[in-house]
Amino acid sequence: MAQPIVDTSKLCIHTITTKPWPIETAIERFSAHGVGGMTIWRDALTGRDIAATGQRIRDAGMAVVSLCRGGFFPAETDVARQAAIDDNHRAIDEAAALGAPLIVLVCGAVPKQPLPLSRQQIQDGIESILDHAASVGVKLAIEPLHPMYADSRSAINTLRQANDACAAIDSPWVGVAVDVYHLWWDPDLEAQIQRCGAMGKLFAFHICDWRTPTEDLLNDRGLMGEGSIPVRQIRGWVEQTGFNGFNEVEIFSNRYWAGDQEAFLAKIVDAYLNHS
Amino acid sequence: MAQPIVDTSKLCIHTITTKPWPIETAIERFSAHGVGGMTIWRDALTGRDIAATGQRIRDAGMAVVSLCRGGFFPAETDVARQAAIDDNHRAIDEAAALGAPLIVLVCGAVPKQPLPLSRQQIQDGIESILDHAASVGVKLAIEPLHPMYADSRSAINTLRQANDACAAIDSPWVGVAVDVYHLWWDPDLEAQIQRCGAMGKLFAFHICDWRTPTEDLLNDRGLMGEGSIPVRQIRGWVEQTGFNGFNEVEIFSNRYWAGDQEAFLAKIVDAYLNHS
Repeated sequence: MAQPIVDTSKLCIHTITTKPWPIETAIERFSAHGVGGMTIWRDALTGRDIAATGQRIRDAGMAVVSLCRGGFFPAETDVARQAAIDDNHRAIDEAAALGAPLIVLVCGAVPKQPLPLSRQQIQDGIESILDHAASVGVKLAIEPLHPMYADSRSAINTLRQANDACAAIDSPWVGVAVDVYHLWWDPDLEAQIQRCGAMGKLFAFHICDWRTPTEDLLNDRGLMGEGSIPVRQIRGWVEQTGFNGFNEVEIFSNRYWAGDQEAFLAKIVDAYLNHS
Repeated sequence: MAQPIVDTSKLCIHTITTKPWPIETAIERFSAHGVGGMTIWRDALTGRDIAATGQRIRDAGMAVVSLCRGGFFPAETDVARQAAIDDNHRAIDEAAALGAPLIVLVCGAVPKQPLPLSRQQIQDGIESILDHAASVGVKLAIEPLHPMYADSRSAINTLRQANDACAAIDSPWVGVAVDVYHLWWDPDLEAQIQRCGAMGKLFAFHICDWRTPTEDLLNDRGLMGEGSIPVRQIRGWVEQTGFNGFNEVEIFSNRYWAGDQEAFLAKIVDAYLNHS
């Protein structure tokens, strides 16, 4: 089991977690709470000067941890797959401008398309953007998604598969984002975290909790401590690999987005310190 | 890939699939469509003479395929675990009275309780009812449930885990129910179906489909052909093991339950013949 967390220096919060806030408010309020880093969702950058926004985050004393999200490579036509690749090239440029060292990949899936075909298209897509990512110094993190998203969001649904994909692609620029929400149920999780770390592929660690009942497949994530995920235990497995990056709070929640974001931020910090 | 289905002799329908119908109506209408078997949910037996209901099904030319459901063994207290075991003993007696050769086990989980502990409680629970099941000739099928139910419905979430549990329990009375809805996403599925068959543990096969978008975690299953599950391919893997039991249509669907059940039944038969 990991040691208790004593401060917010390794706390990173995703902009989508406090979605109602414009990014400028998030920067100001996160910084006021001593948050150590931010992961930026691309929609939060709409209409902003990206480089200036990255500087604003650093000037507020925080790290730009990653850009969310690239991926969604599988598609039914060559044209659609090329459009996805083009969009990933844009994401790489945005990450470079922002000063983000990492892009999280939600790899994609197509309803009714065989999963093995989608997995091949994912590998092909990642390989097609690798040189560009390397040329600007941006890494790519495959995020295995919960099996309930295998129809339309990702054909990579376990850490074992993500590790296997990294081994197949075999590039220092490609690794994994481990998100407890997607992976907590997996009896192979501890072993695959060890493997991921031993491969040098553990690039990011995302936390939240699984509520009971979960009332929405997408937007009913809980704060750490509210649900069934053994967040601290999984953090211990991650840290045993030598990982010393950020603990990224990524919560999609219609119920929290509907409330006061300042009160929610205080709850995030409390849950981070006491239940992570 | 399995051969196309040519008739309804191996079609079994779960009473919950046409939940608005009382069981007497389901027996009459399923039989009229040439359905070969029924799996009975325990709620459908409320207020009925169980033995007479089983006879009524057989008199209508159908097999009683299984009773749904036992299980839910994990609990926080000894008293609650004993209550679950007592209820499973009642389910065994009901299956025997009905003439059902099999009980499907939804094994259970407790929110916030560590999954390994729940798994041990599941094994202990099954072992505690084994002698009773054997004494009346009723088999037990562990149904691995989709990982989105790991918080509260089952701590057994892959076929590998179910196979492992069968190997640990090591009784001819305990096997597995393979449900495509829970397992279709698993990259190990084909190999674990082969293993399950080689162990002599493939006791039941349930079919439906995964809709996009799925709007409810419990009650938005689709008809075969409506979604992303390669039902025919998985049926082929199952049949390659030598399985020649029923293909059981188990659909929980608020949208179908809200409509005309006779029209839904015709759609089930059509989907069975053309998309299974």
